[in-house]
This record gives sequence, structure tokens and C-alpha cells, in this order.
Amino acid sequence: MTKLVRTQGVTAPLGFRAAGIAAGIKASGNPDLALVFSEGPEYSAAGVFTRNKVKAAPVLWSQQVLTGGHLRAVILNSGGANACTGPGGFQDTHATAEELAKALSNWGTDTGAGEIAVCSTGLIGDRLPMDKLLPAVTEIVHEMGGGLGGGTDAAYAIMTTDTVPKQAAYHHRDKWNVGGMAKGAGMLAPSLATMLVVLTADVVATPEQLDRALRNATARTFDRLDVDGSCSTNDTVLLLANGASAVAPSQEELDAAVLAVCDDLAAQLMADAEGVTKRVLVTVSGAANEDEALIGARTVARDSLVKTALFGSDPNWGRVLAAVGMAPITLEPDRISVSFNGSPVCVDGTGAPGAREVDLSGADIHVLIELGVGEGTATIRTTDLSHGYVEENSAYSS
Amino acid sequence: MTKLVRTQGVTAPLGFRAAGIAAGIKASGNPDLALVFSEGPEYSAAGVFTRNKVKAAPVLWSQQVLTGGHLRAVILNSGGANACTGPGGFQDTHATAEELAKALSNWGTDTGAGEIAVCSTGLIGDRLPMDKLLPAVTEIVHEMGGGLGGGTDAAYAIMTTDTVPKQAAYHHRDKWNVGGMAKGAGMLAPSLATMLVVLTADVVATPEQLDRALRNATARTFDRLDVDGSCSTNDTVLLLANGASAVAPSQEELDAAVLAVCDDLAAQLMADAEGVTKRVLVTVSGAANEDEALIGARTVARDSLVKTALFGSDPNWGRVLAAVGMAPITLEPDRISVSFNGSPVCVDGTGAPGAREVDLSGADIHVLIELGVGEGTATIRTTDLSHGYVEENSAYSS
Repeated sequence: MTKLVRTQGVTAPLGFRAAGIAAGIKASGNPDLALVFSEGPEYSAAGVFTRNKVKAAPVLWSQQVLTGGHLRAVILNSGGANACTGPGGFQDTHATAEELAKALSNWGTDTGAGEIAVCSTGLIGDRLPMDKLLPAVTEIVHEMGGGLGGGTDAAYAIMTTDTVPKQAAYHHRDKWNVGGMAKGAGMLAPSLATMLVVLTADVVATPEQLDRALRNATARTFDRLDVDGSCSTNDTVLLLANGASAVAPSQEELDAAVLAVCDDLAAQLMADAEGVTKRVLVTVSGAANEDEALIGARTVARDSLVKTALFGSDPNWGRVLAAVGMAPITLEPDRISVSFNGSPVCVDGTGAPGAREVDLSGADIHVLIELGVGEGTATIRTTDLSHGYVEENSAYSS
Repeated sequence: MTKLVRTQGVTAPLGFRAAGIAAGIKASGNPDLALVFSEGPEYSAAGVFTRNKVKAAPVLWSQQVLTGGHLRAVILNSGGANACTGPGGFQDTHATAEELAKALSNWGTDTGAGEIAVCSTGLIGDRLPMDKLLPAVTEIVHEMGGGLGGGTDAAYAIMTTDTVPKQAAYHHRDKWNVGGMAKGAGMLAPSLATMLVVLTADVVATPEQLDRALRNATARTFDRLDVDGSCSTNDTVLLLANGASAVAPSQEELDAAVLAVCDDLAAQLMADAEGVTKRVLVTVSGAANEDEALIGARTVARDSLVKTALFGSDPNWGRVLAAVGMAPITLEPDRISVSFNGSPVCVDGTGAPGAREVDLSGADIHVLIELGVGEGTATIRTTDLSHGYVEENSAYSS
């Protein structure tokens, strides 16, 4: 039976090993180094990266590596983004990949640095402590195991302000699997912000098939998660496939599996976003087309006045109207209707009876905006704007 | 001598009267109805309105009235936005103008409703209490006086979450004057959000000259004030000129005077924005052109992670880099330099020595971002994102 579970992650598919250890990068002593390793026999891979023009050194490195569509391993650190660190920072990333290639080769797997992706997350602007990182790279190769524990350890080691690790695994009835882990608790935005995701699959698939499945999935999941409109320098989503199940699913099956895992990880990211007290879905329907629906939903989901009202459980629908009215899309103010959790609050551009009494005290809020000008529909996942968000983000680097 | 003062507002120019009274629209009993009246002999006028597609009834009315370039009076209420109130809400606006026309005519000034602009501010979505508003319109005509007190009373009556009234007056050495009042404490955004401004001038000027002066001034002042990226349904800026000084300044003199008053009112709006603890200027210089500089500065000024860091007095320059990197403008990450209050924190895309120790504990912060790709420069006025902002906006309608 095909099923999706959250108790397993990157080591759910056959032939993947993982580990997570404390390398001493974080001052807290918490785990901060993760490794995902593919045993093959194939090493197809695809990646999607931040659209920010200011890209961290590991993003520049991994983008270059991925041009070959081939990956054996991913090494990830938390505790430092290695962004805005100049040529020295890029050399640090390169040295990390070289060190891992050497350690994996010593361990018995002939691996080159050009087969290794590197991901970093944490504060922008500081160099990584290479004196701690390089010895830990050798240590983590010795630590990595093939069981489910390795995947979970890795998921813990990439956490920053996350409060829980995020994993998901999709088991197809035909005995092939897709697994994944994610971190990210702030900066979640249109273009995969402060988010690191590694997905693994034991299917037989070309890099082109993986690329299609990955782009399809990220466009519908991580790209529609928008906590604060910010977008990091380090966002990376990688998909590795090793052919270990010897099954070659159709493109449609692969698309569906990768989408299912990404969708579940995106929901976990939303639920654990910084300072969140409300999980909010903003749907725009009846737009001229899907693109306009998406722009409308994103505009509302980013509006600070809407987000603070939802934090206060306040059914202040006028702010929704004011927000959607700023979206550069086709709309007729007199045709817009809005409901909160199914209760109409605005019909044809004016208030509905009882609108001010709608109860939004629960943790889940669905804002539905019907434009009445076409057939386009799209949903953005977002959160409220809370004291917790301000607190956490006003004290991050200091 | 030419000078700018804050102790006078719309009644500083000759031949304007004003008043502010409590009509009972606000539950608090605070003043909530303001009138600005031009004694002529001329009645030239110009207006700039919100770009939000969802426009309040008074905006639709006043836009229509302004097509004639002619105004005798402006009636403004706080305590209710009269937005998203349907055809009935528009009828309320129309009835208010008719009532004022009748009251002014009874008082001895032959005035038509088509010479009267209406402005409203407050909660979106509720109808105004016309049973209180209409009698108060007659009352306020009897109250209005020509002294400076009338202007100050009017400035008080348009306040919502403002903590202080905002006035400015420009006195030209050649004995002509421009005065103004403003309200606005949230929703301040690119397109004049939750902002009502009335400017008066005793100069001889055509509607076309006023329009040019007003658009020039708003583009450089209110349009560059961006507290939270939101934009209201009600924003209105009006400029009335009555020729009472008999002086016809040159277009350049008029532009400068209107700009000076708007700039000062914009600074007052920033300083009193909801929950503000920091007054922030974000300047982008060295952009490909002024438009790109403005887009870059606005992108940084709207970034929640930058704004929360500034609330925490945290010189987290990496967030500035991450934010500007998302702006759709020409930039070379390795050429970007950033300073906070004159202290370099990032040079050529990497951290400067001592960057983490820069003291941002004061109330004023200037973020200067030098792109090094051209000559364009622009500045946005914004604020931090504080607990006070969340508090005030999560409890506004309830």
C-alpha cells in the first residue's frame, strides 16, 4: 500500500546512509553537521536554489556541481551560513567537499569533490570555524549508518531556530521510496527561503526526470509557503536517486511521490515557523488565471496588517480587501467575497451580517477570497505575525 | 524670511478657516469631524489618491469632484473609513457633501456639493452613523474660525491611532504661505497609505500648477514613506489655493514650498507610526538609476527580518544583503557595501571588522547601501518592526 509517514526521512529509501553530529560550530554544542550518502548504484540528482542574487558560497558551489546531474553525497552544516564571506568563504566550501571526498575514499568509496553538494545555514557574514569543521567531516563518515536513525540524526543536525526536526517518507506499493528532511523556521518565502531540503529516492531515474519532478513539486509547495516575504542567501532543495530498488516509475508516479513528500515537509515548515501561533491558508479563487490567483494570495499572505489581525484572532476582513486591492491583478471591487473558515465576512465587496463575530480563536485559519472574474485558483501557506516572531528575530545574531 | 514651522497648519495661509469637533462617531467621544474651508477669492485645487483598487466611497467621491480642479471645502471624519460599504456608503458620502453645501449656503456662502471633497479614516467595512454625522456638519460650520486654533482643532479631529497631531506651515519671505495637516500612523506605504493630508495655500495658482506641485512633492515624500508595505483604501492628499495673498509664485517656488511642507509632514508621520521605536532611513546609492535605487531601498525597508533586527538594535547586516539581493535591480553582490550610521559593516559583499559591535541603540538609524553599479540614489523612510506594532495592530477592530 502506498503511504506517507513522518517517522522516517532521507534513509527511508534503500541504499542511503546519513548521520548527524556535533562538530562544535554551534556555541550551544548541539548537533550541527549532517551527511547524506548514496550507495548507488546510480547517482542521478537535481537541485533548486535560491533566487536571491546574493548567494552563499555553498550555493555557488552546489549549483556548479549539479550541472553534471550527479551526486554521491551532501554535507550540511548549521551554525553558520557561509554567506557574504568572499573568496575565502568559497574556499572553505571547496575544502569541505575535498575533505569529505578524501574521507569517503579512505572509507572505501571512490568519491570526488565534484560529486558532493554542500549546504550551510545560520548567521550570514561570518566565516565557518574550519579548524572544527574539517576534523568533523572525517568523524561523520565513520558515524553514518544505513538505518532510520541516521536520517533522524541528520534531520536534527540541520536545525537552527527550528523546534522540531522535519522528515517525511513516501512508500510506494511497488516497493520504491522517496524520503526527505527539511529545516527552516524563518525567512520562508516565495523562493525557498532559509530552507534546506534533501530528498532521496531509490528509483531508477535520469537527472532530467528528477529535475522535472523537483521543479514541479517546489513550485507547488515550498514556493507557496510565505512566512515573511524574505528569502535567504542559502536556500537549497536537492533530490538524489540511486536506483537501489531497480524500479523505474513513470514520470507521473515520480512527480506525485516527490510532490507528496515536499507538500508534507512544507506543512511541517509552516507549523514550526518562527513565533507562529496560527497556521494560515490564503486561497484566491475566481481569478483571471492561476498566476493572478497566486499573486493575489501572496499579496494578502504578506500583508503585515492582515497577519497581525489574525494573531489577534480578529476577523478584520477590511484589511483583506485593502491587501488584495494592492495586488497587480484583474479585480472588480464590487465582486470580491471573503470568508474565514467558511463563514462569509464580505459579500460583493461589502460586509456580511455577523462578520465581526466570526470566531478565529483556533490555531488554523483559512482565508478564502473569491474574485469572481475567472477560474484561477491558488493557495499560499502562511502564518500570523506575532510577538514571538518579533522576539525571535530581534535577538537572533546578538 | 522664509521659514517652516510646526505650530501652524491649514489656517496658516490667509483666507482659510477650519474647525474640529466631536460628532460622536468615535465611541471614545474624542474629536472626529474636521472642516477646512477656503474663503477665496479663488478655489483652485488638486488631489492625489490611493492606488489601491479597493477605494473607499469618499475617495470615489473626491476624485470625481476634483476633475473640475475646484474646491471650496474639505470635510473629514475619523472613526470610520466608509470603505467596502457598497452603494449605501457612497450615498452617505454624497449626503455629507450636500449637507455641508446647505450649511455653508445658509451661513452665507453659496456652495455646491460638487465643490466639496470628503475624506474618511478608521475601520473598513462599517457604515458611518449618519444620524450623528449630519447634525454635526451644521454644527462644525458654526464652529469654524479663521485663527490658528481652528487649524489645530482640525488636525486633532482627524487623528486615529496617531498620538500627536501633525501640522506644518511654510512662510515665504514674499508674504505667501502654504500650510498643511496630516494623519496616519499605520498602513503607511508606497501609495500614501492610511493617510489623509490637506494642504492650503494663499497663492494665485491654476489647478494645473497645483497638480504639478502636489505630484512632485508626494512622489518624493509620502510615496517614500513605507512603514509596513500596506496601502489603505482611503489615502488622500489635497491641495487648495485661494489666491488670498494676491501673489503668484513661480512654479519652482510653489514646488519648493509644497515639497517642504510635505517633507516635514512625512517626517512627522514616520516619527509617530504605530509602535515605532526607531526612525529608519534606508538609502541605496550607486544604483543603475534613481528608479532602481528606490526599488532597492523599498525592498530593504519592507523586509521583516531587517526591521525586527533594527528593533533589537542588532547590526545584522547580512539581512540587509539578503533583502537587497531579492530586489529586481542590477547588482553585483561583490560590490555591495553597507554602513549603519556611518560605520561600515560590509565592504565589497563581505563583513567589515567590528561590524557586529556597531551601536544601534539610539532612536535614529541610517542604513546606507552602496551598490557600485551606477549613479542612482534614493531614500525610503521607515521604522522598526516592534512589539508595539504587533500589539496595536492585533487589537484594532476588536
